[in-house]
Amino acid sequence: MNTPLFSRVVLVGVGLIGGSLALALKAAGVVGQVVGLDRSPEHLEQARALGLIDQIATSSAAALRHCDLVVLATPVAQTATVLRSLLPDLEAGTLITDTGSTKSDVIAAARAALGPAVARFVPGHPVSGGELHGPAAARVDLFRDRNVVLTPLAENAPADVARVAAAWAACGARVSEMSAAQHDGVLASVSHLPHMLAYALVAQIAKAPDGDLRFRFGGGGFRDFTRIAASSPEMWRDIALSNRPALLEELDGFSAMLADLRGMIERGDGAALEALFTLASEKRLNWKPG
Amino acid sequence: MNTPLFSRVVLVGVGLIGGSLALALKAAGVVGQVVGLDRSPEHLEQARALGLIDQIATSSAAALRHCDLVVLATPVAQTATVLRSLLPDLEAGTLITDTGSTKSDVIAAARAALGPAVARFVPGHPVSGGELHGPAAARVDLFRDRNVVLTPLAENAPADVARVAAAWAACGARVSEMSAAQHDGVLASVSHLPHMLAYALVAQIAKAPDGDLRFRFGGGGFRDFTRIAASSPEMWRDIALSNRPALLEELDGFSAMLADLRGMIERGDGAALEALFTLASEKRLNWKPG
Repeated sequence: MNTPLFSRVVLVGVGLIGGSLALALKAAGVVGQVVGLDRSPEHLEQARALGLIDQIATSSAAALRHCDLVVLATPVAQTATVLRSLLPDLEAGTLITDTGSTKSDVIAAARAALGPAVARFVPGHPVSGGELHGPAAARVDLFRDRNVVLTPLAENAPADVARVAAAWAACGARVSEMSAAQHDGVLASVSHLPHMLAYALVAQIAKAPDGDLRFRFGGGGFRDFTRIAASSPEMWRDIALSNRPALLEELDGFSAMLADLRGMIERGDGAALEALFTLASEKRLNWKPG
Repeated sequence: MNTPLFSRVVLVGVGLIGGSLALALKAAGVVGQVVGLDRSPEHLEQARALGLIDQIATSSAAALRHCDLVVLATPVAQTATVLRSLLPDLEAGTLITDTGSTKSDVIAAARAALGPAVARFVPGHPVSGGELHGPAAARVDLFRDRNVVLTPLAENAPADVARVAAAWAACGARVSEMSAAQHDGVLASVSHLPHMLAYALVAQIAKAPDGDLRFRFGGGGFRDFTRIAASSPEMWRDIALSNRPALLEELDGFSAMLADLRGMIERGDGAALEALFTLASEKRLNWKPG
């Protein structure tokens, strides 16, 4: 057993991400006690029964007493509301981190809600997840060999950032740091934009007069390309709005690339098409999942 | 053993598609003898050694004597050249079919090459394939439960179309008929357009100044979405050019859909985004591969 990095952790949101983090921290022996806070009493009971949390918080004041880390694992759009409700009971020594898919927007919400206390907020994003939700979906190895990105603030103490990084590393994650803007650009590019394209393609076919016929002739390529179009509409609505500036930039870059490609096809420029396809296929053949 | 539908088949192109068709026809007992014709002597030897073909053609004149079916399983761009070379030795009773991924363009090439003999050309497309190529990749079950589309010509005799359909049905395929224009629209929509989008996305990331960083953060969604961007650049160059009108129409429809989606994000219209994503996710969740 390692020395606990944190003796008392308050987990706000005991679903897939929060529950998996609690399991992994406990398995690594780097956390004393985990206290759960959630809007859903059923999820809290389930999380305790599954051993994700040790205690259900009776109030946020009670939960936050002698707490040294608060983890936000709630939908991104709730960040400001949750932080505002915690602020009055937050002790001077308590660190806060989050798990949201977008960072600039979350940081702006945290700044507005916390004021100067934002210095103790270390923003983070585990680039991991799954199609399942809720406490029952939690897995101790959800973050093993997966990327976790921290986007530290100028106000953060380096020692605080290092403690949050150590917690994720104890879960088996590959931790890296970048600016919030860079994080949002990278994720817009490799995750948010592909989701928009898959949704748009399936919607285009669904709206075609002969859409049912078209769907019947989709094969294995179509299956894989459109798999992410089955993702949660609510979650992706929130991500699209929360990462709006970076996503609009990627969308515009993509539209320009598609206009170039259209031009090559229209003027019958086989050499340019082959060069573009070769660039992409070589990159993709040599790529390995992060 | 069934009565052979065709006593002597000449297979032009003994790769994955042609070889698999020969195997399946032989296994079903609906073909007498299969004679192979290919630019590659190595592929012909390999095809004979693997039992895909019974004979290697010494000349097209010799091959076509008493032949009742010619199957073209060559790249689409070679259709006119191959048909022109066969025409002088084609007997009056010989049917011809093909396996090309695009149909309007192939039919135009066949009309130009064959003249009135185009009446004996029954265009077809097995919607199947794989990442591997050549005779060694051939599989007896490649077409089992897969779609084969015939796009008959006004000049075709219904009995000839029925014989070609029966050959594919004997291979376990689901055979349907549509017009060449409809085929090209359907395939542009569910196959050619997704390939263009996957190529364009990977190329966009490859060209970004921080492209390597971006690729490092691609996860499971990115992996599946971009799998088809690893496809053969030469083959997809030819398909894009060969199906130009239908593909341009789909590209324009997609660009319009993407512009709508961009507008929803820009003006923060969460309700419209959620409605679009819900339409797509419900369709995708209920979809089964064709």
